[in-house]
Amino acid sequence: MIEIILLQLFVLILFAKIAAIVFEFVRLPPLVGEIVAGIIIGNTFIFDLLQLGTNIEVLSVLAEIGVIFLLFAIGLETPFSDLKRVGGTAILVAILGVIFPFIFGFLLIVSSGFPQIEALFIGAAMTATSIGITARVIKDMNIMNSIESKVIIGAAVIDDVLGLVILAMISGIASGGAMDIVDTVMVAALAVLFVVAVVFVGSGLLPKVRKQVHEFRTPTPVMRARRKISPLAVAIIVCFGLSAAASYFGLAAIVGAFLAGMVFAEFKDLFPIGEQFEAINEFLVPFFFLYIGISVNLSTFGGVAILALMITFVAIATKFIGCGLGAYRLGVKSAAIVGVGMAPRGEVGLIIASVGLTIGSISNDMFSIVVFMSLLTTLAAPLLLTYTFNWKMGRTARF
Amino acid sequence: MIEIILLQLFVLILFAKIAAIVFEFVRLPPLVGEIVAGIIIGNTFIFDLLQLGTNIEVLSVLAEIGVIFLLFAIGLETPFSDLKRVGGTAILVAILGVIFPFIFGFLLIVSSGFPQIEALFIGAAMTATSIGITARVIKDMNIMNSIESKVIIGAAVIDDVLGLVILAMISGIASGGAMDIVDTVMVAALAVLFVVAVVFVGSGLLPKVRKQVHEFRTPTPVMRARRKISPLAVAIIVCFGLSAAASYFGLAAIVGAFLAGMVFAEFKDLFPIGEQFEAINEFLVPFFFLYIGISVNLSTFGGVAILALMITFVAIATKFIGCGLGAYRLGVKSAAIVGVGMAPRGEVGLIIASVGLTIGSISNDMFSIVVFMSLLTTLAAPLLLTYTFNWKMGRTARF
Repeated sequence: MIEIILLQLFVLILFAKIAAIVFEFVRLPPLVGEIVAGIIIGNTFIFDLLQLGTNIEVLSVLAEIGVIFLLFAIGLETPFSDLKRVGGTAILVAILGVIFPFIFGFLLIVSSGFPQIEALFIGAAMTATSIGITARVIKDMNIMNSIESKVIIGAAVIDDVLGLVILAMISGIASGGAMDIVDTVMVAALAVLFVVAVVFVGSGLLPKVRKQVHEFRTPTPVMRARRKISPLAVAIIVCFGLSAAASYFGLAAIVGAFLAGMVFAEFKDLFPIGEQFEAINEFLVPFFFLYIGISVNLSTFGGVAILALMITFVAIATKFIGCGLGAYRLGVKSAAIVGVGMAPRGEVGLIIASVGLTIGSISNDMFSIVVFMSLLTTLAAPLLLTYTFNWKMGRTARF
Repeated sequence: MIEIILLQLFVLILFAKIAAIVFEFVRLPPLVGEIVAGIIIGNTFIFDLLQLGTNIEVLSVLAEIGVIFLLFAIGLETPFSDLKRVGGTAILVAILGVIFPFIFGFLLIVSSGFPQIEALFIGAAMTATSIGITARVIKDMNIMNSIESKVIIGAAVIDDVLGLVILAMISGIASGGAMDIVDTVMVAALAVLFVVAVVFVGSGLLPKVRKQVHEFRTPTPVMRARRKISPLAVAIIVCFGLSAAASYFGLAAIVGAFLAGMVFAEFKDLFPIGEQFEAINEFLVPFFFLYIGISVNLSTFGGVAILALMITFVAIATKFIGCGLGAYRLGVKSAAIVGVGMAPRGEVGLIIASVGLTIGSISNDMFSIVVFMSLLTTLAAPLLLTYTFNWKMGRTARF
């Protein structure tokens, strides 16, 4: 068994890295190269040759660990103080950026003659911007420190929570027939409580703890033992702890990982773990994007291509309008940057779509459409971001 | 499904790190702490609480990736030139250190009234010193650069190959009744060919390649693309490539990983990847030692404890005599260091034991005995190494 897994890992990493380099060479985002590598592997003889069908669980776990560490690393570059500064705008961007895609996505699918429940799932899958993909696009473009990036990342975190609340509501409708108000409110309340608790502990309590750590310098035996504790190990434990907690609270695990990263962002000087996580992520993150690509089924795709393009257009346009309105106070050009930066859909959208697929509310084709939409919005974002950033910079230069 | 896996990862890492710190604090090898953490998890209510029974495959893959990266990192600190210097001694140490445990292990089991085939498997499981455990003990003791360490590591690589050749022979006996000479010779020839090929390419061809790389500095478009290729990615690809190749050649995958590490040891200045691998390994390696511990079944162990202790004694004594004789030309004290340093058994012994378990040649109890022997030899090695090193240093100090 282990021979075939080693061969799988070898071929998967090889394809992902070659595709990433080729895409980077023609100035496209490397992560799209990794997704395309996954689509190629998943839709050709390579899939059967590698016997990926029988071992897909292993790949899915590596993908999940990869996206968790990715979100941790992104959180690590997002201190609470920064997020608080953009908090109000980010919340508005998130809410409007959820309402517009959900309503117009729903209307598009219903008016195309599909059942209402399927339309609800597709609408929901269009609500949540992918923190993972968005942040990597932003990182690849080297614009992590701009105000727009902070708003985008903050809003992407919040709309993940909103997206999962919507999922809780519509799966209630799909299974029970009527919506269970109590359950929905519970999920929403727990989710908000969890985020608020971590943010409160992170921004309120931790600075005091770190002051204590600074002051407490007497070399007792306990301190000597403590010095053997590697910061990386502590970070990994907290990361998995909060990820597991988040999923038990009904949130996406990646939200917990992101919050864990934000906690450690406050301790960057005491725990210099950024480079170590970059090394781990260079190994693990490609599995996440490969896995998305491998999940795409091209064979039945021809018949639904037009609908996929329409959904993609609605997905980009509604995020642009909704999030742009939310960020209007930053100025027109910054609002445009936020509007296009929120376009990429990913993990949460795919989670919602796969819940719909599992309980039989959406078809296989509709699932492929969601992946296709996620891919195209991801491809479009860096092009649109480059364009809008140049627009803003050009104006700045003229003044 | 993912919630439970995240909880498993969280609890496993937490237990492993706490155990490692506690063991380090009382000056015992941290890896033994990790194995003990695994035994605790595998033999208490925690195992069922974490539902590890249903997801053990995921843990076994993480363990396998962990031990592969560990062996790569060890290879990274073992340049060919060093190994060539100790080559002759290492070969002699390896051969004598395989013959003695195999013969006396076989005799002990047969004389205890067990079938010959079971005795052959236990004898074989006692032949191969664990590179992974040995190297980590050596690293924890900070004696990587001594001549004895080089001999021990070199011999441990070679006796892994010998152990797997013996496995090929006895599984031939167990399945076909009679030994298939052609198959055995094929496996042995392929194994030797593979190691020689990698060593030849590594020590002969690569210095020329790296000279070329140094000289070829014209910034062509290809070179610009090449600069985007991360050394870590190349190392990971080569590591998995050679590991997969090794397992297809009938060798343990870790032998390929070790050889891959040795190749990159020649390029340390061009590819500074040591720290990056250390970060990845801090996450992945504990899974290997946890997995060994979890595989131990304590509930049936009481009945075979005496036999386990006898086998452990024979395992340590025969390696001490065999390897000590092999290293005699280094002087009595260095020979003693090599003799005790070769004691830890691990991966290959456990692989051989699980092959025996799978084809029904050895019992469940006998498998637990092999794990117990592996654990005790690992615990004994650092104590004996410290003692023999002090003995040698004391003499050096007196001269």
